[in-house]
Amino acid sequence: MSRKELPLVGQAGCCTPLAAAPLSEDDATELARGFRALGDPVRLRLLSLIASFAGGEACVCDLTDAFDLTGPTISHHLRVLRETGLVESERRGTWVYYKVVPEKLASLSVLLQVPEATLTATPA
Amino acid sequence: MSRKELPLVGQAGCCTPLAAAPLSEDDATELARGFRALGDPVRLRLLSLIASFAGGEACVCDLTDAFDLTGPTISHHLRVLRETGLVESERRGTWVYYKVVPEKLASLSVLLQVPEATLTATPA
Repeated sequence: MSRKELPLVGQAGCCTPLAAAPLSEDDATELARGFRALGDPVRLRLLSLIASFAGGEACVCDLTDAFDLTGPTISHHLRVLRETGLVESERRGTWVYYKVVPEKLASLSVLLQVPEATLTATPA
Repeated sequence: MSRKELPLVGQAGCCTPLAAAPLSEDDATELARGFRALGDPVRLRLLSLIASFAGGEACVCDLTDAFDLTGPTISHHLRVLRETGLVESERRGTWVYYKVVPEKLASLSVLLQVPEATLTATPA
């Protein structure tokens, strides 16, 4: 695992919701990196596109075709997603294939979970 | 609801995971705003601190005491959280009170949910 990757918080796919206890400074710094990577429309669409492909894996050729952006721009965004550990890549023959790392997505998802009961209240 | 607030995606607390279908450009733009607001360690800690307080509500006086930052810096981060609809505020007497908007957190959490089965695989 490269040093730039976002570490898993707690067990794979199982961490503590924000509401459970105040986040430490170190955890907040690492988790904010993950959310910052998601905080861009192109990266969110790339992630969604990769995750939606059969088998959760997409060839970089499929991704560039879906955007009205240059190859280097797409590559930059894919690199950010890879460096934060949200996707991983593998070269097979001519093409690089990307797939989502479900444990990383899950660790961020759990962080934002709120108790069921609070969702029954009238939205503000 | 101010025009700057992050709209709920689908029903309150119930939207479509990233893997279900490729995100539209408009949805990605709005959702990325929410993640960008979470992509800062101070804002994540503020949100966690507010959510951890009894009743999910905290006085601004409780928040400033917890950080080694100036009042205006804390206020700036609280404003970003409020403008994206992640928290809401109410003035009561001398103090402003902040509380988390659970539906907004839930809509971002659901987006990052992955099928259970994919989490049983060996992490990469």
